[in-house]
Amino acid sequence: MAAIVDIVTVAENENGTQSRAVPASVRLWRDRIDTRLGQLIRADEQACPTLVEAMRYSLMSRGKRVRPLLAVLTALDFGRDPQRLLDFGCALELVHCASLMLDDLPCMDNARMRRGKPAAHIQFGEATTTLAAIALLNQAYGVIANSDALAEAIRCRLVAQLSEAVGTAGLVSGQSRDLVERKRGVDSAGLRRINQQKTGVLFELAVVGGGTIADLPEARLKILNDFAGHVGQAFQSADDLLDCQQHCGTTGKDSGVDVEKAGSVHQLGEDTLRERLIGELDAADAQLDALGIDDSLLKNFVLSLFRRLLQGSRPQ
Amino acid sequence: MAAIVDIVTVAENENGTQSRAVPASVRLWRDRIDTRLGQLIRADEQACPTLVEAMRYSLMSRGKRVRPLLAVLTALDFGRDPQRLLDFGCALELVHCASLMLDDLPCMDNARMRRGKPAAHIQFGEATTTLAAIALLNQAYGVIANSDALAEAIRCRLVAQLSEAVGTAGLVSGQSRDLVERKRGVDSAGLRRINQQKTGVLFELAVVGGGTIADLPEARLKILNDFAGHVGQAFQSADDLLDCQQHCGTTGKDSGVDVEKAGSVHQLGEDTLRERLIGELDAADAQLDALGIDDSLLKNFVLSLFRRLLQGSRPQ
Repeated sequence: MAAIVDIVTVAENENGTQSRAVPASVRLWRDRIDTRLGQLIRADEQACPTLVEAMRYSLMSRGKRVRPLLAVLTALDFGRDPQRLLDFGCALELVHCASLMLDDLPCMDNARMRRGKPAAHIQFGEATTTLAAIALLNQAYGVIANSDALAEAIRCRLVAQLSEAVGTAGLVSGQSRDLVERKRGVDSAGLRRINQQKTGVLFELAVVGGGTIADLPEARLKILNDFAGHVGQAFQSADDLLDCQQHCGTTGKDSGVDVEKAGSVHQLGEDTLRERLIGELDAADAQLDALGIDDSLLKNFVLSLFRRLLQGSRPQ
Repeated sequence: MAAIVDIVTVAENENGTQSRAVPASVRLWRDRIDTRLGQLIRADEQACPTLVEAMRYSLMSRGKRVRPLLAVLTALDFGRDPQRLLDFGCALELVHCASLMLDDLPCMDNARMRRGKPAAHIQFGEATTTLAAIALLNQAYGVIANSDALAEAIRCRLVAQLSEAVGTAGLVSGQSRDLVERKRGVDSAGLRRINQQKTGVLFELAVVGGGTIADLPEARLKILNDFAGHVGQAFQSADDLLDCQQHCGTTGKDSGVDVEKAGSVHQLGEDTLRERLIGELDAADAQLDALGIDDSLLKNFVLSLFRRLLQGSRPQ
């Protein structure tokens, strides 16, 4: 969150009005995303109160909302109103939040801290955390299916694409490989696949979803997809790098939790990993240049993320 | 499975041809469901092999396929070809299978046996089991969204209804309440709500989905919904009753695992619970009668399930 807040603060003039389009847009939409996320977690009579509390605890903690912002900023970059895809972006955040809760479980990464406070399983226990994570993931599909602002054909397409991104081609395989393969050691291609499945797929879906709603032709969606894939690689590489370098107080979660499985850093070396990260960012930049967007919000947002990140903050 | 197989066997004549429509239809569609489920679990290059193995281990073990059959038999009862909703029915089975894998985890019911073999977490560990369950649940949405035989408007409606049934109004709250509330003791109304959320919601969605595809008017969908709700209550009550009565060899999973939380049996008494079960079946029967279906496949199927069940077999 700090990255976005910082650039927004710099961009405000004395009257609090927005002097630069980029940060003001980011702040505005980030607030709208947070508001909408808060509305989506219902504490009605049917819902088990403990479960709702755990969902809200995890979802409403400080987070950068990178995935919904990628979707929203893509639409803005192409001159479209992102309001129609606000719920789609929030659905991606529900999925991302669920994945963090599950990754932190004792049987997975066994992390005790997340986003600067005790991980959900520390606060609510394993059973409630598992069920709350499933509730969040599950709700993502209902949110997309009920997005009245989108044509039903687009809703179906986004549901199918999200299912693909979360399933055995994406997140769950990425996490499974992270647990199984990295402890054994993976080569550079294996590590790339893990990063792609753990992070890339949702980044790609965010911008492709934004581009779909903006009616972009397939060729441009492909470029956006490649851009997001490179950003995902950079993001996950930076996360791995930081796990070995930093302590809990800075990153907001346990340091060293991922060290055992951080084959990437051990095998490739920090310098190589850092070069790789910068190479991915350059490749992402080149893709965006190919789209010919002046003063791209996407570009500025990604740069702001990594500027902070390379100074020591955590990406997720 | 035994219940269906038995009635099918009785129904076959010496030449193996089908002498009664009811059991032949059940057998035919159960085989088609199994075949389709097997096709849905892909072991492609992207998928982590361990994960796919765990998914297949749980999904392809013997199961009655009650939920997909309820959907299919509803369509048949109203003279429609169920082929269009085969994938929808399979999606419900994916969700049900995921819920069983999660329920058996050490942090939940800590059951070591399921469907006559070691529970998934015994075979694959907690992390892989959790991820495989999520992969199955998640895939259900992709399966519905990609059901080309259904209009996109219907797909969106079914995705939204499934999300509602699994979420805080349904399965996850039911399981959470089962863990939290039943150990403390619940009254009759509380128990009814747990049963409804754990079992009723998916039964209801199965028949309503079948009825939707058969273009039934709302009034008839409502009757079908009520029918399935009563069947769900009876089903869960029977399951609770059996947990206290029977041993592992008969039920296919650990006996006594649910005893600690089986407040229903302890508080209400076995006789009361049995009367309640029969009362729910009578109520279900009355709903079906209101629909005026001659020689209803749904009715015969449900009766066959409970005939075996009351003799000691497990419903799920």
